Amino acid sequence: MASAPPSGSAPPSEEGDPRRRLAEYETLLEIGVELAGTLDRQRVLELAVQHAERLCRAETGSIWELDEERGELFFRVVRGRVAGRIRDLRVPLGAGVVGAVAASGEPALVDDVEHDPRWRGEAAAGFTTRGLVAVPLVARGRVIGVLQLLNPVGRAAFDEDDLRRLRLFAGPLAHALENARLHEAEKRQFRDTVTALAEAVEKRDPYTGGHIRRVVCYSLLLGRELGLADAELEQLWVGAALHDIGKIAVPDAVLRKEGPLDVAERAAMDRHPSAGAEIVSRVRSLQPLVPVVRSHHERVDGGGYPDGLAGEAIPLAARIVAVADTFDAMTSDRPYRRGLGPETAAAEIVRHAGRQHAPEVVAALERLHRRGEFTLAAGEELLASLSGHPDAG
Amino acid sequence: MASAPPSGSAPPSEEGDPRRRLAEYETLLEIGVELAGTLDRQRVLELAVQHAERLCRAETGSIWELDEERGELFFRVVRGRVAGRIRDLRVPLGAGVVGAVAASGEPALVDDVEHDPRWRGEAAAGFTTRGLVAVPLVARGRVIGVLQLLNPVGRAAFDEDDLRRLRLFAGPLAHALENARLHEAEKRQFRDTVTALAEAVEKRDPYTGGHIRRVVCYSLLLGRELGLADAELEQLWVGAALHDIGKIAVPDAVLRKEGPLDVAERAAMDRHPSAGAEIVSRVRSLQPLVPVVRSHHERVDGGGYPDGLAGEAIPLAARIVAVADTFDAMTSDRPYRRGLGPETAAAEIVRHAGRQHAPEVVAALERLHRRGEFTLAAGEELLASLSGHPDAG
Repeated sequence: MASAPPSGSAPPSEEGDPRRRLAEYETLLEIGVELAGTLDRQRVLELAVQHAERLCRAETGSIWELDEERGELFFRVVRGRVAGRIRDLRVPLGAGVVGAVAASGEPALVDDVEHDPRWRGEAAAGFTTRGLVAVPLVARGRVIGVLQLLNPVGRAAFDEDDLRRLRLFAGPLAHALENARLHEAEKRQFRDTVTALAEAVEKRDPYTGGHIRRVVCYSLLLGRELGLADAELEQLWVGAALHDIGKIAVPDAVLRKEGPLDVAERAAMDRHPSAGAEIVSRVRSLQPLVPVVRSHHERVDGGGYPDGLAGEAIPLAARIVAVADTFDAMTSDRPYRRGLGPETAAAEIVRHAGRQHAPEVVAALERLHRRGEFTLAAGEELLASLSGHPDAG
Repeated sequence: MASAPPSGSAPPSEEGDPRRRLAEYETLLEIGVELAGTLDRQRVLELAVQHAERLCRAETGSIWELDEERGELFFRVVRGRVAGRIRDLRVPLGAGVVGAVAASGEPALVDDVEHDPRWRGEAAAGFTTRGLVAVPLVARGRVIGVLQLLNPVGRAAFDEDDLRRLRLFAGPLAHALENARLHEAEKRQFRDTVTALAEAVEKRDPYTGGHIRRVVCYSLLLGRELGLADAELEQLWVGAALHDIGKIAVPDAVLRKEGPLDVAERAAMDRHPSAGAEIVSRVRSLQPLVPVVRSHHERVDGGGYPDGLAGEAIPLAARIVAVADTFDAMTSDRPYRRGLGPETAAAEIVRHAGRQHAPEVVAALERLHRRGEFTLAAGEELLASLSGHPDAG
């Protein structure tokens, strides 16, 4: 078992000092709880390298994750002087010390690295590696990565006791990392599936290709500018992605009609916010989004639909999506007109602040626009950061 | 910090025996790794109660989870003689020993339970409680539940040392439980959202109300009968839920036409499997489902569409969904005909085994049907079990 200390591996000096060992175990128990307490992969990685360096008094540490599909290990985190130089390094499974540890599932303790036949200079030119200790990270019976420490501080070499400690540490770390990875994968699956289905619904409307994705991006940028926390931004993107989902209930004859709609057709079209709210309301955990979907065509002056809400009675997320939606509609081409430039569209929205749109959201748009940050690329980046770090490849 | 031993709380006999403490810490480290290694809530609960009973040599143990919305604690797991009697017990926050521990965040160590003013007989009539020890489960700064042990074995009372051990154990347990809960909540959100969106798409088709949900149920029953593992069943339900998602691309004029379709209309209708596959293919983690959605109208004799695949070239999940889809279509009412009884529909499907449908899937249907287990209720139950245990309430 990964967490059991290798029997007989500790030097006698350690066996003779159970109190020091007790303190060390208490530290390991605390670290284990700390690691289990987050599902944020980047945070797990950073905590882990810090703790590992301290546990074994090492100059620098790194964590490598195994990309099973490619049979490669890639850096997840590294600290210390070499950080900038080796971030993009990849090592084939089986190659080098790190690759050998991952392939065999056996730890490595190397005194004189430069003379080890497996050593391929995984650190970087200009950094002299004296000694290293590396342990496999095993979760659910599979090697998922390697934790490596370089250069002991204040001693000539890492010893069996460092290795023993690091193996004890590897158990909680591997599981915390695997749990965080699963958590991210689930979040990403949810995001990608909702997006794919919302885009499929959108495709029925001949005028709105890519609209969903753009409204998501603009909404997130506005939300962040307005100071929303990450958890609120997560909610906001789902609301923005699903804002037009109710169009599924609008007949083709209305949705695809060229030219103006008559009264009955307009009424059918204007039912899409409430139809969308009804769909979203069926998902218990998405209840907070129901008002967002329902109210994205309200106006702050009370002249919108379906409920004629005014001002702050309109949920903030709906006020945000309304601005994002309008901005994208104005800047997109239609068969009967060219889209406006972003400058003109922003000015037009500003002109309607306090009537159609909420002043504080419009002000956020203005600030972003002035700083040149109201771009799809910036929105995509923000969206990606919310869903955690992509898997390798 | 929850994991730090309360200083000075251990009796001198323990302090004087660091070797015993070392062994205990090693056990706690191992248990921590074991708990972190699963995101299955039921498994975390069962492991935890077993380990806790052993750590403190207790007659029986239970874990209570806090339902914050209702301000109540409810049983999650209990072992021993009282198990059957108290499963449904709920305790208001603040009431009883367990409720007091949850409300205060402070542990309880009670020698003479029957005379404790807080005691309200949380166990059950016929079970004599002598002593108890209970600790709060704290994850991410919030009390999420209580771990309680009743009746020390081979001793008169639980002592401070039991309490210290149990507090050390509570940290990893609380986080494992919270991580499992989040994992389940995410799975459920994904399932419910996919279902809600698939059903919204389905609603455009006037003849198929509830079809998606029924096809999911029948598919899961067939899959389990055919020996699929839980992970495969998880995939199967998504494939079944999305099997008709491509109908989003079928025009109203075709989808809603009463009477027979002409050649062009039939072609438009028959594009729905490939259109659906295209939608699903946009989600990286759903790649394995693309062939399922694409091939659910193939026939084992090669006469289906869109690719004319035959026999085992049709993915098993698609062969399963095809049978479930046909069974539901046959047993559902249409404006122009009454649905067949399940007996007749099953017999009809059996008659086409080897031509339209895969013999092994048809055989599974026959077995289930004969045992009276091919019911929507059984399918719903199976689906619920895949997504973990529902939150309280």
